[in-house]
Amino acid sequence: MTVFDVTDRSRDLRQRLLAFMDEHIYPNDAEAARQVNEGDRWQHLPLIDELKPKAREAGLWNLFLPPASDPDGTFGPGLSNLEYAPLCEIMGQVWWAPEVFNCAAPDTGNMEVLARYGTPEQQEQWLFPLLNGEIRSAFSMTEPDVASSDATNIESSIRRDGEDYVINGEKWWTSGAGDPRCAVSIFMGKTDPNAERHLQQSMILIPMDAPGVTRERMLTVFGYDDAPHGHAQMTFKDVRVPASALLLGEGRGFEIAQGRLGPGRIHHCMRLIGQAERALELMVARASSRVAFGKPLSAHQHVRELIAQSRMEIDQARLLTMNAAHMMDTVGNKEARGQIAAIKVVAPNMALAVIDRAIQVFGGAGVSQDTPLAMMYAQARTLRLADGPDIVHIGTVAKEELRRQGEAARGRDNVFSPSS
Amino acid sequence: MTVFDVTDRSRDLRQRLLAFMDEHIYPNDAEAARQVNEGDRWQHLPLIDELKPKAREAGLWNLFLPPASDPDGTFGPGLSNLEYAPLCEIMGQVWWAPEVFNCAAPDTGNMEVLARYGTPEQQEQWLFPLLNGEIRSAFSMTEPDVASSDATNIESSIRRDGEDYVINGEKWWTSGAGDPRCAVSIFMGKTDPNAERHLQQSMILIPMDAPGVTRERMLTVFGYDDAPHGHAQMTFKDVRVPASALLLGEGRGFEIAQGRLGPGRIHHCMRLIGQAERALELMVARASSRVAFGKPLSAHQHVRELIAQSRMEIDQARLLTMNAAHMMDTVGNKEARGQIAAIKVVAPNMALAVIDRAIQVFGGAGVSQDTPLAMMYAQARTLRLADGPDIVHIGTVAKEELRRQGEAARGRDNVFSPSS
Amino acid sequence: MTVFDVTDRSRDLRQRLLAFMDEHIYPNDAEAARQVNEGDRWQHLPLIDELKPKAREAGLWNLFLPPASDPDGTFGPGLSNLEYAPLCEIMGQVWWAPEVFNCAAPDTGNMEVLARYGTPEQQEQWLFPLLNGEIRSAFSMTEPDVASSDATNIESSIRRDGEDYVINGEKWWTSGAGDPRCAVSIFMGKTDPNAERHLQQSMILIPMDAPGVTRERMLTVFGYDDAPHGHAQMTFKDVRVPASALLLGEGRGFEIAQGRLGPGRIHHCMRLIGQAERALELMVARASSRVAFGKPLSAHQHVRELIAQSRMEIDQARLLTMNAAHMMDTVGNKEARGQIAAIKVVAPNMALAVIDRAIQVFGGAGVSQDTPLAMMYAQARTLRLADGPDIVHIGTVAKEELRRQGEAARGRDNVFSPSS
Amino acid sequence: MTVFDVTDRSRDLRQRLLAFMDEHIYPNDAEAARQVNEGDRWQHLPLIDELKPKAREAGLWNLFLPPASDPDGTFGPGLSNLEYAPLCEIMGQVWWAPEVFNCAAPDTGNMEVLARYGTPEQQEQWLFPLLNGEIRSAFSMTEPDVASSDATNIESSIRRDGEDYVINGEKWWTSGAGDPRCAVSIFMGKTDPNAERHLQQSMILIPMDAPGVTRERMLTVFGYDDAPHGHAQMTFKDVRVPASALLLGEGRGFEIAQGRLGPGRIHHCMRLIGQAERALELMVARASSRVAFGKPLSAHQHVRELIAQSRMEIDQARLLTMNAAHMMDTVGNKEARGQIAAIKVVAPNMALAVIDRAIQVFGGAGVSQDTPLAMMYAQARTLRLADGPDIVHIGTVAKEELRRQGEAARGRDNVFSPSS
Repeated sequence: MTVFDVTDRSRDLRQRLLAFMDEHIYPNDAEAARQVNEGDRWQHLPLIDELKPKAREAGLWNLFLPPASDPDGTFGPGLSNLEYAPLCEIMGQVWWAPEVFNCAAPDTGNMEVLARYGTPEQQEQWLFPLLNGEIRSAFSMTEPDVASSDATNIESSIRRDGEDYVINGEKWWTSGAGDPRCAVSIFMGKTDPNAERHLQQSMILIPMDAPGVTRERMLTVFGYDDAPHGHAQMTFKDVRVPASALLLGEGRGFEIAQGRLGPGRIHHCMRLIGQAERALELMVARASSRVAFGKPLSAHQHVRELIAQSRMEIDQARLLTMNAAHMMDTVGNKEARGQIAAIKVVAPNMALAVIDRAIQVFGGAGVSQDTPLAMMYAQARTLRLADGPDIVHIGTVAKEELRRQGEAARGRDNVFSPSS
Repeated sequence: MTVFDVTDRSRDLRQRLLAFMDEHIYPNDAEAARQVNEGDRWQHLPLIDELKPKAREAGLWNLFLPPASDPDGTFGPGLSNLEYAPLCEIMGQVWWAPEVFNCAAPDTGNMEVLARYGTPEQQEQWLFPLLNGEIRSAFSMTEPDVASSDATNIESSIRRDGEDYVINGEKWWTSGAGDPRCAVSIFMGKTDPNAERHLQQSMILIPMDAPGVTRERMLTVFGYDDAPHGHAQMTFKDVRVPASALLLGEGRGFEIAQGRLGPGRIHHCMRLIGQAERALELMVARASSRVAFGKPLSAHQHVRELIAQSRMEIDQARLLTMNAAHMMDTVGNKEARGQIAAIKVVAPNMALAVIDRAIQVFGGAGVSQDTPLAMMYAQARTLRLADGPDIVHIGTVAKEELRRQGEAARGRDNVFSPSS
Repeated sequence: MTVFDVTDRSRDLRQRLLAFMDEHIYPNDAEAARQVNEGDRWQHLPLIDELKPKAREAGLWNLFLPPASDPDGTFGPGLSNLEYAPLCEIMGQVWWAPEVFNCAAPDTGNMEVLARYGTPEQQEQWLFPLLNGEIRSAFSMTEPDVASSDATNIESSIRRDGEDYVINGEKWWTSGAGDPRCAVSIFMGKTDPNAERHLQQSMILIPMDAPGVTRERMLTVFGYDDAPHGHAQMTFKDVRVPASALLLGEGRGFEIAQGRLGPGRIHHCMRLIGQAERALELMVARASSRVAFGKPLSAHQHVRELIAQSRMEIDQARLLTMNAAHMMDTVGNKEARGQIAAIKVVAPNMALAVIDRAIQVFGGAGVSQDTPLAMMYAQARTLRLADGPDIVHIGTVAKEELRRQGEAARGRDNVFSPSS
Repeated sequence: MTVFDVTDRSRDLRQRLLAFMDEHIYPNDAEAARQVNEGDRWQHLPLIDELKPKAREAGLWNLFLPPASDPDGTFGPGLSNLEYAPLCEIMGQVWWAPEVFNCAAPDTGNMEVLARYGTPEQQEQWLFPLLNGEIRSAFSMTEPDVASSDATNIESSIRRDGEDYVINGEKWWTSGAGDPRCAVSIFMGKTDPNAERHLQQSMILIPMDAPGVTRERMLTVFGYDDAPHGHAQMTFKDVRVPASALLLGEGRGFEIAQGRLGPGRIHHCMRLIGQAERALELMVARASSRVAFGKPLSAHQHVRELIAQSRMEIDQARLLTMNAAHMMDTVGNKEARGQIAAIKVVAPNMALAVIDRAIQVFGGAGVSQDTPLAMMYAQARTLRLADGPDIVHIGTVAKEELRRQGEAARGRDNVFSPSS
């Protein structure tokens, strides 16, 4: 619908994906909820297992995987970020949908890390099962005892001991650790607390069943446990893994984090736009069918303002996201860091505003289990915190702007000369 | 601290209440959570039963009850709205505290209805046990199938049949119905669908154990079930109660609703101010103790802005609430309807903004079970919907302003005469 | 910089235009102010006359003129809306610059009307002198006595009398009427007050020196008179013009208005984005050079937030504008009416927010004649009113969204099915 | 109307003031505009001279003067801040009204400084003529070359030379310097650049006709020159005054500034509330009389929201202002500094929001000379900068909150203990 809809194959995949969603996802939304709510909440959904082969057969598999990470197109279509954006948005509209297409966080980010930085052995052990959707994974970075907005605060230790590394630390918001298929976590900690500030950290692969790994408790988000995925607080006590489990090299944790977070952030934003779009769709449907004071809600000027405001905000955020994706594709993640930071601020705040309006139009149903809105709100709210709070990304945008204008140096001649 | 702190006894009660909170409520906050989370969530909290006699003994009982409803001071101190405001705010800071002082919704509103409009028999049966804290009660007004913003939409029927009334209808958001001690509900429905629009409705007392009363399911608010209080969806099928259970008279439902909602609304607002004040207190404590980028969060200009903005918004909302309470005390609920409507809009939105900032300062802990913030947010969010969505109250404020200015008629002379 | 930078010639023109601005416009900004402020404010600026031939020679002339209105490329390069957008933005950064390139409002809209709907005689008389920059023009639509948000309110009359039309009415906000070269105005009035609501209006060409045309007074915008351009209140008393002066036909005024307003609106938005971009540039320059509390303003977190917020808002509004331009180019103004309405709301509000932040960073200088900010603010503020107030366009966005979702009819299956 | 309407004499003065406004001020609003706009703009308005004796006779004179500064009630009624608030608000509704009652800034602040800190000679020479409304005065603090948000930046020098002080420096925003009756300015500069940071500054009285005092130019605010009052940029070159012109003592400039700014700030806020109240009055009048789309603007839900939002914001800001006044009266300006800072942020932002809505309802008339709205907006906008930009006061509010909570030290027991 926008100038960004560039390639034919992206358009084609979009049509196929929409058809799949209509055939297999939306009609099963209530069934998914039923499967979570009945019995043990921490079981894999049989529904997802049924649908995965269908999705793969339809060519809707590993859509996130960039061509550089899969040059032969073995595992997926090898889409650019810009091509993936409209697809990610659609999958993001339903909480359990991305996994059906093997496009769920945090696996996507982890797979990309493994594809870019993993050794052949690491890839054999963890990447291929992930790409085939056989196992799931987690990412252990944030710690309860220090401010996560400043990643240098991380205190966990990864200590070399002979042929092994020994890991100690407490992590939380290890998302996905609730899933019984979660087999491995990428763990960030300090290999050298005395090194230069950004070279103290490393990343290492830890099997979830390694001795010393304990899932202490599951965290709630607003009232939700987000089962069966979940967010765990974990203790790592004298966990021992072979030295070959280290990713890329000692002191390169920040480097990997930067590479991982770019795509991860923009994928979150794409899903948020999908969430907002769905919230607007629900809002319009409700407004069209409910009557108050003698006319449908959609005929009340106030409700029309809520609808219009939402449309304007969604479209702006979507274009900003697509532009960021385009920048990543053309000038690279590093050069696009300002654009990535911007969308990481804009998308969650936009989604929260739109979902909140939808809740208001729905009334009591909006905060209850009768709509997906409250859960969508809770998830979107965490994305103003996850991967860094808004203010950190705002700082990045400001820094880039100051740098850019400093470089531009169009000179004082262009700046206003006051009349006297 | 403000000019509104007028009477000595209010000041004295405030000191005693703060002491009680410090001694009995805050230290037991974790225990309250434990009692809810262990075993059957829908049991009355033993902790509350232990503390009630202590509160009554301390003279901190039925503080909400206005003197007109208890002229002899049999059941409580008989405070004005303005005197009650600072006390209600303090109790509102902890979710389970108001019940300890027999000041919890919806009982307070129900007791006031019974005190003002109840027959001696109705009072004997329901009011006195409520005032003694022996039973609890519910209020059944909103219906799932119609827009609750327009109360004339209500479709439940209360049909006279001989010496009885027969009730049919579906209600939801019957808050408090989850508590096993909930013994009675005030129910709103139509006795005469053909009467003038505002005379179709009546209110009637229905025992919760009457045949035909079914608690279909409990609703969630964001992910919370708010156990053991809870919010029920209820079916009333051919429920039969004696004609003497009708309140005030046929067709007088709206009249009672207006009388009930004024104090109920302002009490909610007082509690919200307490919640916001507590959120700010937590925010400041966190900001003072966490370090990021080399200094405490409280030394970051951004965080200071969050703190200052919160302080300015809380103080304004509190003064507006106290002024509304003062108006209710002096010119009456009806004349103060503009002020009540205003605070019903201002307080929840203010509280949401403050709590949201606190969540942001806490990071992941803010959305989890490790702080009360997410639950506070969820509750405050419902108060932009409960007792009418914002837009309905905004309409009331506008209507009052248009009326007032029409009456004022200071005349065209005072209005701007343009220079030419 | 974005994916929208599509054609080579647009890129090339952008480079040439930037060079021209650097060489001829910015260095003369103070001189332009001097020429306005000295002597009679209502004289054409000699500076502009000097620069016009240079601009034309540089191929920077009539850049706004769409290819359909100039198929042979006689008068300009024939750019698409999308190609014109980045150029219009740059010209819009300085209040007197657009006229240098013959791209100033309201001439651009008037020229397009004449090109699309004018007879050969009308074009000979008015269009060609306008395209050559020899005369200027005005647009007389809004009336002081009726709400302009509802264009059907217009009360002026255009009455047929033999071979002539006789015009009566009072108009205001006839922008450009202060310029002594303003030779003609397009006038909207009713030819048939009894026709169907949207067929009562017609447009007619009235020479500014016709008997009965009186410029009653000049209006101020905030304190500015916007000389020498200006905004006039005009009386038209028994003004007689030949019947051939009518545009397109009786009753087709609304049809022309719709055609005229699309490009006019988006051009305003492009200029606003230029204004906002310049305000941000000034803000950054000031923040980098001023010191408070021991460090440059740009090192204060609060100021960095102002900068980042501005960057994020500008980029979103620019992308939305470019997308609207792209839609106009590809599906036509009518189909793009939702996108045009959206940007007409978004751009002025964004520009006001950005300029306001720049004022705050500048302090007293920001509201004074020492920066262009206050004047930019005043102009941007009028664009929340001109061509319809925000709420009218918000209504259009809502209407389009409701229509679109109604058509989409993805069906109830896709909408949330609640879990029970 | 609020609980703050405490004393009878304040109520009585309010009635008399309203009557005076209705009889003498509103009917002359157009005449005042005429007198400014005709001939030399920098002349005292004859209208004001006519009305001053009437106001004094009516006992409406020097209402701002606190009892401590006039213990015998020689010059005015000696009102508390709380008593003055509702009067200041009313006078503030019309730009030229405060001077009629000898309550105009910056005279009020200057008179208070002279009353509190002046020697008998200084009072004889300057205070009494000011109290009698015979002369006017200015305040020279802000400098064009340094950030005024940080008052320690001030660079002007006040150098002792024998029996004299010699003053050098450049000041701007010396408001009131345009009035030909402006006889004296209180000037802030450094007596000792090497002293401790807050002891470098002093204040001194400089006659406006002293040799070396030059009014370089008048500044505009948005497009307004604010004649005949005006805002001057001034050069002080080797200006020599006797040592007795120094206020209070060397190095005590900050001390005086603090004492002066408290009341000055709150008076500005009271006037802003008056401005906002008048803007709302105009908005309601317009909304009631204009028709669009078949009904009065006041029947459009959007306009009703604008009205209601304005009412809610005004009432909150007024209560906050009155509470700050009450605090100043009871605990003193120093203890009330948090409250003063808060209202200095809240009132201008509130007024801007309300006035902006009124402009939007008026359409083109709102930005023009046909309503006072645009001028009110421009003035209110400066008050987000004057006496310190918002962010400085926000910092004060945060600092006070952090201090207060630190002192409160209710201890960790009251803070949330997480459930696990």
